[in-house]
Amino acid sequence: MGERVTEPADHPVIRPSINAVAATYDLAVTDPALAAARSELMGGTVNRFLHVTTSADDVVAQNKMQRRLGQLTGTCFQRCVGMDAINSLYSLTFDVDAANGTAYHDRFRVWLTEVQRLNLVVGGAMTDVKGDRSKGPSQQADPDLFVRVVERRTDGIVLRGAKAHQTGCINSHWIVVMPTMRLTAADRDWAVVAAIPVEAEGLTYVYGRQSCDTRAMEGDIDAGNATYAGQEALIVLDDVFVPWEHVFLDGEHEFAAELVERFTAYHRRSYVCKAGVGDVLIGAAALIAEYNGVEKASHIRDKLVEMAHLNETIYGAGIAASHESHPTPAGNWENDGLLANVCKHNVTRFPYEIARLAQDLAGGAMVTLPSQADFAHSEIGPLLEKYFAGKSGVPTEWRVRVLRLIENMTLGRNAVGYLTESMHGAGSPQAQRVQIARQMDLDEKKAFARRLAGIDG
Amino acid sequence: MGERVTEPADHPVIRPSINAVAATYDLAVTDPALAAARSELMGGTVNRFLHVTTSADDVVAQNKMQRRLGQLTGTCFQRCVGMDAINSLYSLTFDVDAANGTAYHDRFRVWLTEVQRLNLVVGGAMTDVKGDRSKGPSQQADPDLFVRVVERRTDGIVLRGAKAHQTGCINSHWIVVMPTMRLTAADRDWAVVAAIPVEAEGLTYVYGRQSCDTRAMEGDIDAGNATYAGQEALIVLDDVFVPWEHVFLDGEHEFAAELVERFTAYHRRSYVCKAGVGDVLIGAAALIAEYNGVEKASHIRDKLVEMAHLNETIYGAGIAASHESHPTPAGNWENDGLLANVCKHNVTRFPYEIARLAQDLAGGAMVTLPSQADFAHSEIGPLLEKYFAGKSGVPTEWRVRVLRLIENMTLGRNAVGYLTESMHGAGSPQAQRVQIARQMDLDEKKAFARRLAGIDG
Amino acid sequence: MGERVTEPADHPVIRPSINAVAATYDLAVTDPALAAARSELMGGTVNRFLHVTTSADDVVAQNKMQRRLGQLTGTCFQRCVGMDAINSLYSLTFDVDAANGTAYHDRFRVWLTEVQRLNLVVGGAMTDVKGDRSKGPSQQADPDLFVRVVERRTDGIVLRGAKAHQTGCINSHWIVVMPTMRLTAADRDWAVVAAIPVEAEGLTYVYGRQSCDTRAMEGDIDAGNATYAGQEALIVLDDVFVPWEHVFLDGEHEFAAELVERFTAYHRRSYVCKAGVGDVLIGAAALIAEYNGVEKASHIRDKLVEMAHLNETIYGAGIAASHESHPTPAGNWENDGLLANVCKHNVTRFPYEIARLAQDLAGGAMVTLPSQADFAHSEIGPLLEKYFAGKSGVPTEWRVRVLRLIENMTLGRNAVGYLTESMHGAGSPQAQRVQIARQMDLDEKKAFARRLAGIDG
Amino acid sequence: MGERVTEPADHPVIRPSINAVAATYDLAVTDPALAAARSELMGGTVNRFLHVTTSADDVVAQNKMQRRLGQLTGTCFQRCVGMDAINSLYSLTFDVDAANGTAYHDRFRVWLTEVQRLNLVVGGAMTDVKGDRSKGPSQQADPDLFVRVVERRTDGIVLRGAKAHQTGCINSHWIVVMPTMRLTAADRDWAVVAAIPVEAEGLTYVYGRQSCDTRAMEGDIDAGNATYAGQEALIVLDDVFVPWEHVFLDGEHEFAAELVERFTAYHRRSYVCKAGVGDVLIGAAALIAEYNGVEKASHIRDKLVEMAHLNETIYGAGIAASHESHPTPAGNWENDGLLANVCKHNVTRFPYEIARLAQDLAGGAMVTLPSQADFAHSEIGPLLEKYFAGKSGVPTEWRVRVLRLIENMTLGRNAVGYLTESMHGAGSPQAQRVQIARQMDLDEKKAFARRLAGIDG
Repeated sequence: MGERVTEPADHPVIRPSINAVAATYDLAVTDPALAAARSELMGGTVNRFLHVTTSADDVVAQNKMQRRLGQLTGTCFQRCVGMDAINSLYSLTFDVDAANGTAYHDRFRVWLTEVQRLNLVVGGAMTDVKGDRSKGPSQQADPDLFVRVVERRTDGIVLRGAKAHQTGCINSHWIVVMPTMRLTAADRDWAVVAAIPVEAEGLTYVYGRQSCDTRAMEGDIDAGNATYAGQEALIVLDDVFVPWEHVFLDGEHEFAAELVERFTAYHRRSYVCKAGVGDVLIGAAALIAEYNGVEKASHIRDKLVEMAHLNETIYGAGIAASHESHPTPAGNWENDGLLANVCKHNVTRFPYEIARLAQDLAGGAMVTLPSQADFAHSEIGPLLEKYFAGKSGVPTEWRVRVLRLIENMTLGRNAVGYLTESMHGAGSPQAQRVQIARQMDLDEKKAFARRLAGIDG
Repeated sequence: MGERVTEPADHPVIRPSINAVAATYDLAVTDPALAAARSELMGGTVNRFLHVTTSADDVVAQNKMQRRLGQLTGTCFQRCVGMDAINSLYSLTFDVDAANGTAYHDRFRVWLTEVQRLNLVVGGAMTDVKGDRSKGPSQQADPDLFVRVVERRTDGIVLRGAKAHQTGCINSHWIVVMPTMRLTAADRDWAVVAAIPVEAEGLTYVYGRQSCDTRAMEGDIDAGNATYAGQEALIVLDDVFVPWEHVFLDGEHEFAAELVERFTAYHRRSYVCKAGVGDVLIGAAALIAEYNGVEKASHIRDKLVEMAHLNETIYGAGIAASHESHPTPAGNWENDGLLANVCKHNVTRFPYEIARLAQDLAGGAMVTLPSQADFAHSEIGPLLEKYFAGKSGVPTEWRVRVLRLIENMTLGRNAVGYLTESMHGAGSPQAQRVQIARQMDLDEKKAFARRLAGIDG
Repeated sequence: MGERVTEPADHPVIRPSINAVAATYDLAVTDPALAAARSELMGGTVNRFLHVTTSADDVVAQNKMQRRLGQLTGTCFQRCVGMDAINSLYSLTFDVDAANGTAYHDRFRVWLTEVQRLNLVVGGAMTDVKGDRSKGPSQQADPDLFVRVVERRTDGIVLRGAKAHQTGCINSHWIVVMPTMRLTAADRDWAVVAAIPVEAEGLTYVYGRQSCDTRAMEGDIDAGNATYAGQEALIVLDDVFVPWEHVFLDGEHEFAAELVERFTAYHRRSYVCKAGVGDVLIGAAALIAEYNGVEKASHIRDKLVEMAHLNETIYGAGIAASHESHPTPAGNWENDGLLANVCKHNVTRFPYEIARLAQDLAGGAMVTLPSQADFAHSEIGPLLEKYFAGKSGVPTEWRVRVLRLIENMTLGRNAVGYLTESMHGAGSPQAQRVQIARQMDLDEKKAFARRLAGIDG
Repeated sequence: MGERVTEPADHPVIRPSINAVAATYDLAVTDPALAAARSELMGGTVNRFLHVTTSADDVVAQNKMQRRLGQLTGTCFQRCVGMDAINSLYSLTFDVDAANGTAYHDRFRVWLTEVQRLNLVVGGAMTDVKGDRSKGPSQQADPDLFVRVVERRTDGIVLRGAKAHQTGCINSHWIVVMPTMRLTAADRDWAVVAAIPVEAEGLTYVYGRQSCDTRAMEGDIDAGNATYAGQEALIVLDDVFVPWEHVFLDGEHEFAAELVERFTAYHRRSYVCKAGVGDVLIGAAALIAEYNGVEKASHIRDKLVEMAHLNETIYGAGIAASHESHPTPAGNWENDGLLANVCKHNVTRFPYEIARLAQDLAGGAMVTLPSQADFAHSEIGPLLEKYFAGKSGVPTEWRVRVLRLIENMTLGRNAVGYLTESMHGAGSPQAQRVQIARQMDLDEKKAFARRLAGIDG
C-alpha cells in the first residue's frame, strides 16, 4: 500500500502469513510421523515439505499433512508449491540429463541437500504475468512479460521478468523460478529453471491486497482468524544474477511442457489442503447453529452433511491420486495425473458450495455485525450485548467470533485462499479440463462401446 | 467502529449507500415511466417506491425499475423494503378493519399520502434479533428480544426492542416496524405495526461492518465500486413513543402471520434487483475477458452464457410472479406467492454460481493485485504498469479497475448485498421452502397421478 | 416394427398417443376459457391450438392450457408444434410479403380459416434428417437430406426429403413443412414452407420405437400410464405434390433463419407443458411416499419441495416470456425470445433432476417389480400380494400402479417425452445457448460495469 | 411374466444376465492378476469374488476388477454382493465369537473354503420387503415381512420371509441371507445369517421386470446391449430349512447394526463398477458425436470432459476408501467407511448427470428410431438407410447400434443398473447421509473452528 516494509515479521498484515508457515515447522516437531520424513539425500530427518518421495505412502503422507495444516490454520500455509517443485524437478532434471547428457540432476541434489540441512522454506514461482494471453513469450511486445535469460556469463545467468501472485514468497528462503507453459524453439531463452535466494539483488516484492486485509490492524475479533492468513506477492526480477550451480534448466524448451505437467500433477492433488480448511468452515457452521439453538433441525443437519460430503469428495480424489503413485526413472514417486486433475477440478467448485452453505447457516448477522470497537464501547457495548444474545449460556462474544470466522473464510481474507485460490491456484479450471481431455482415453472407451453395441469397426 | 457519526452524509463509508438511495430519486426524474407513477391517493405523480399498485402492470413495473437500479448501482438501493411494506400494509390494514371494525386503513392512508407528498424514504423493519430461535417472543428470557409495546398511553404507545440488520435505515425518513413471525395470543404485545420518524427520541443506530468497508477511505480504485454501496444497521428502540395516528396494528396477533406472508410475497420477487446487479457482474466478467484477449475463446463465451442464463432465470420467475398478480379487497394488486418464493429461492443459489464463474473469468489477479497506493508509487508504479499490462491498447488501470469491481461484488463490500443478502434477505432459504411446501398443492398433484395410474382411491 | 398399420386408431401402441390428442379436443369443450378462443379470422370460437394470438393474455393462455394438458395426460399431447407454426407463419408471411410483394399471407389466412372451421390437427415439421451435420443442405452428398423443391409446375411444387422424429404426425390432418436452419442463396430450393394433407400421395410414415412401447400390449398396469403416450415418426416425402395455394414460402432463403428464430421463440416457452407433466410425477412421488408410510419424514418432504421448486422455475420463465409478448406487424402477438430460450434451457436440465428425485422416493422396487401377469398368477399372486404390502390400508396394487407410473415417466414410454424430448425438442441445449448468447446484450452489460468501475473507455 | 421358466439359461430375457456373471469367470482366466487371488484358506488360487482380503492392495484390486467388468459388460455382473458379504461376515463372525464364545467363525471358514474350492457364485441377500417402513420387524402386522427364524430344531433352523430385488440370485449357487437393519432385543428371531443353496426346498424366485426387457426377444439391435444385462428377483423363503453348519448368526441382535455397517462399508465403494459402466456410456457418446461429424465441436468436447470428470470423481472416492483400509481383528482388511459412503453418495447423483449428457450428445433420434424390423423391411429399409445416413463412411447401422446402446443405458434395460440401482443399491441416498453424519466428526471440526476463532469454550 505504497509503503516499504523493512521488517515484514513485525507488520500486522504480514504476520499471520508468517504464522501459517511457522505451523509447518511446528507440526514437524509435534507430529513427526505426519510432517517429517527420513531423507536419503541428506541422511537424516527433514521436514516433509523438503522431502523427495520414495514411496506411494510418502506421497499420500503429504496429503495427510496438508489436510492437517489446513485444519490447524484455516488458510494457505504456502509451502506446497516448493514441495511439489522439488519433487517434479527431481525427476525432470534426471530425464533432461538422460536425454541431453547435461548434469542438472546432480546440481539439483547438491542444492536440495543443503536446503534440507538448513531446513529452509522454498517457494516455487511458476506463473508469469503473461501480457496478451493469446501470444507466447517470444511473441509479446515486451519480452519481459515472461521470465527469461537476458545474459549468459561464464559464472551464471541473468534473469529478468516477473512472477505474479506468488504464494508465500516473502516468507521463503529460496525462490525456484520455472516456466509456466509449453515452449517452442523460439522461446529458448524463456526455458529456464533456477533457484534464487529470496534476498538476492534485483528482486522486488509487491505485496498483494486481500479482501479485508486491513482488519488485521483493527483488533483480533473483526479479523475472524487473527492468527493465520495466506500471502501473495508480485516478484519482479530486475536482472538477477544466478550462478550456474543454481541453474537447473537453461534452454531445453522441449522439456517445459513436461515440467508443467509433472508439477501440476503433484500440485493439483496438493489442494486436499482445502479439505482441511473445509473442516474448519464446517465446524464453524456447526458452531453457529449450536449457538443459535438450531443444531438439531433436520435442514440444518442436512446441510452440514452435504458440506462434509463435498469436502470428503475432494479429499477422496486427492488421496486416490497419491495412492496410485508410480516410481519415476529418477527413483522418486509421482502421483496419478488424471485423478489429481479431477481432485483440483472439484476444488474449483465444491468450496464455493460449501461456503454458500456456511453462509446459509450463519444467517445475515455475519455481514451486518457491528465492529469490535462498538462492542467495546461504553454506551453501545451493553446494548449490543443485550441484543445479540443467542442461546442461553453462550456468550455473545462467541457468536460474534464464529460469525467473523465464517466471514473471514467466505468473504474476507481467507476466502482469498479458500475460494479464489481454489479456483486458480495450480491452474484455472480450463487447465484441468484440457488435462482431463488428454488423459481420459476416449479411444479405449469407444472400443468398449463398439464391442457392446456389436459394431465391427 | 466505536465512533459517533454526526453527519452521516459526509462519512466516506456511508456516502456510497446514500448515493444508492439518491439513484432512486434520480431515476424517477430521468425515466418517470419506469420509476414514477400516478398516485390516486395523493392525486399526483409519486416515486414508484411510494406507490400503491393498482394493476398487475404496476407490480411488474416495480420489477423493471428494480432491475434497472441494480444495473445502475451494482448494489442494494435499499428502498424495496419500504415499497413492499407499504403495499402489504395497505391491504392488511383493510382486512383487519373489515374483521375487527378498527380504523387502521384510513390512518395508514393519511400517513402514506403525506409521505408521498413529501417524497420521503420509508424503511421497513421486520427482522427482530430473536435470541434463542427455538422460542417465541413471549417465551424469551428477555422480552425485549422482539420489539414490543411496553406501555399504552392515551396519546400513543411506547416501543422497546431492536431490529437487526436493517437495510438503509439511516438513509430513511421513516421506519415502519412490523412483527417478524406468526404470533400467538400470548404474544399480543409484540403484534405491533408503527411508523416512526428516523430521528425519533429513543432510537439508536449501530452501523454494521461490511467486508472491505474501510477501503472507502483508501481511494476510489481499491473500493471497486466507489460510488455505490448498501447499508445495514441495528436499530435499538429504547422506549420510543409513537402517537396513535402512526400505529397500524396493535395487538391483533392473529394477523401477524398473514402480514409476514403478504410482505414476503412482495419482497421475495423484489429480489429481481439481483438480476440487475448480475448484469453488472456479467458485464465485468466480459470486460476482463476482453482486456485479457480471450473473449472469443469458446469456454469463456460459454461461461458468460451460463451466467446470463442463470441471471434471466431469476428474473423470469420474479416477473412471472408479478404478472400473475391479483387485486386485493383493499383494491391494490398483489403478486403470486408461489412464484415469488421460487424466485427468491433461486436468488439464494444462482448469484453464488454467477459469482463463482466471474471469479473464474477474472483470474487470480483479482485477489493479489497490489494496492492503488503501490500503483501510484514513484518507483513501484512503473514496474506494476509494465508487468500488469494486458492486451495491447488496454490501459493497465482499466484491468485493475474491472478486477477490483469483480472483487467488490464477489468478496468485498457489494458481495454483502449480492451474495449474503441474496441468501438471507426477505427470509432465509428454509423460509422459502416452507412456503413452497405450503403452496405446492400436493393433493392436486397426487390426484393427477392417481388418475393416470388407474388408482381408484 | 416391420408391419404396415392400416388402422392406426386400433393399434394398442398407437392408441394412447391418439388419446393424448383427443384430450386437446375435450379440454376445449370442458374448459373453453382455457382451451378455446374467439378467432377473428374464422369469426367464431376455435380450439386454442388453432388460434392466432391477439394479445399477451392470449399467449399466456397457451401456456396455462399446456400445463393443464400435461397434468391431464402425463405426456406429450403433440399439438403445440402446429400452434407455434401457425403463429410464426402468420407474422412471417406478412413480413415476406411486405419485403417482396408476394401474397403468402393471404394464402396462409385462407388455408388457416378453413383449418379452423373444420377444427383440424396441424403438425409442424421442421427437423430435417441432416446427414453430415457439418454441412448445409446444398453441400450434402445426397441433396434429399433436407426437404427441397425438386420441381416447380404451373399448378404447384413437388417436394422430396424427410422430416425426422415428427411429434404426433400420424395423428394430424395437415403437416406444415418448414426449413430447419439458416439458409444461403445456394440453398434456395430448400427454402420452402408448405401445408400438406396427411394422406397426400408420396408420404410415408415410419413409427419410432419408444422405451417399453410394447408394454401397451401387455395389460394396463405394467404400462404405467395405459391411457396416454406421445408419438414420433419419420415422414418421408417421395415427390409429394403441393398446389400453390398451400405454399407459404418458396425460395426466399433470407427468411429461413428468421422463421426458425420466430418459431423457436414460441416453441421454447411451449415447454411449460413439462411443468404439467412434472406435476404428475411429483404427485406420483408423493403418493409412493404416502403408501410407504414415510411422507412426513423431513428428507422426503424436502425432496418434494425441491421437485416443486424446479418445476415452478420452468413454469416461471415460460409464462414470463409469454407475458412479455409484443405485437408483430401482422397483428398477432409474439413472446419474448430470451426468456423463452431460458425456459427451454432449464427444461433440458430440471426434468432430469426431478426424475432422479422421483426415483429416489420410489425406491428400488420401481425397477424390480414382477409383471402384472405374475401378480395375477394363481400361485405366485398371493405371495406377491403378501410381500409387496406397504402401509396398512393401502392395496398392494396401488403401490404397484404408482411405481409403474414413475417407471413410465422416468425410464419408460413417457420418459421419452419428459426427458429426451425435453432435451432435444424445440432445439437441443446448444441451440438455446447460441440464442441466449445473441440476445444477452453483453455490450450493454459491459457499459454498466465500466460506469461503476470508473473506466472511461 | 406369469410363466414358470424351467431352464433359465435358455430364456432370452435371462441369458444376458448369465453372460454377465460368466464374464466374472472369464476375467479370472484371462487376467488373473486382476480377477484372481491366492487364498490362504483354500490354499490355492481363487476367483477374487470369493477371496478374503489380506491387504489394502487386495481391497483396491477388487475395485479395479469391478471397473474392468463394468467396462466389459456395461451392466451389473451381480457378484459384488457376495464378495462383500463374505468379507464382512469373515470379520463379524470372528467378533461375535470373541464376544459371546460362539463358534460361527470356524463354521463360516469351513463353508467358504468349500465354496472357494468349487468356485461357486454366492449371492448376498440383505434387503427385506419391509412392509410399513415406520415399523421394525417385530412390530409389523405380518411378522414375515422381514426374514426370520420360525423354528429351531436340533439339526438346524427354519426360515420364513422374503428378500426383495435380489441381484443375480437366480445365477447364484448359494444365497446368504442377512438382516437389513439395526435390531432390538424384541427382534431376536430376525437376527439371522445363513447360507442356503439356491435350489433349496421352499425357495421361490419371482423375476423382476426391467425397462425394455422384452426387446431381448426382438433381435440384437433394438436391445442395445444384446449380450449383457443385470437381473433382480424377489426370493420367497417359505419355511426353508438350514442345517446348523450354514448358520452364521442366530439371535445376536446386537450385532445386526454392525453387520449392516460393515457390509455397506464394503459394498458402497464396490459401486466404482459404475465408473466402468460410465466408461462405456462416455465411449458411446463419443462415438455418436464422431458418427454425426461433430466430435471436434468445443461444446461436444466439453461435455465429454465433464462426463469423464464426474466418472473419475466416483472412482477416486471409491479407491481412496479401499486404499485407506485397515486390518480387522479377524485378519482380513476392511476399507474406510466414510469415503465409501461418499463414493456411493456420488453414485446416486453423477450417473444421472452423465446419462443426461449422453442423451444430449445422442440427439433425439435415440428415442425415435424405427425398429430393427423396419430397417430390415424390403420397402422401408432402403428409405431408412438413405435418410438416417450420418457422416460419410459410417454405415447407418453403426449409428443405429450406438444410439440403441445409449438408449439401453439411459432408459432401457441397463439404465436399471446404471441409474436406479446406482440410486438404491447398497442403500438409498439417505442411508449414506445418515452414515456420513455419524462419521464426519463434527466435534473435532468444531474444535478446529473454536481454536481459530479464539473461543475458549
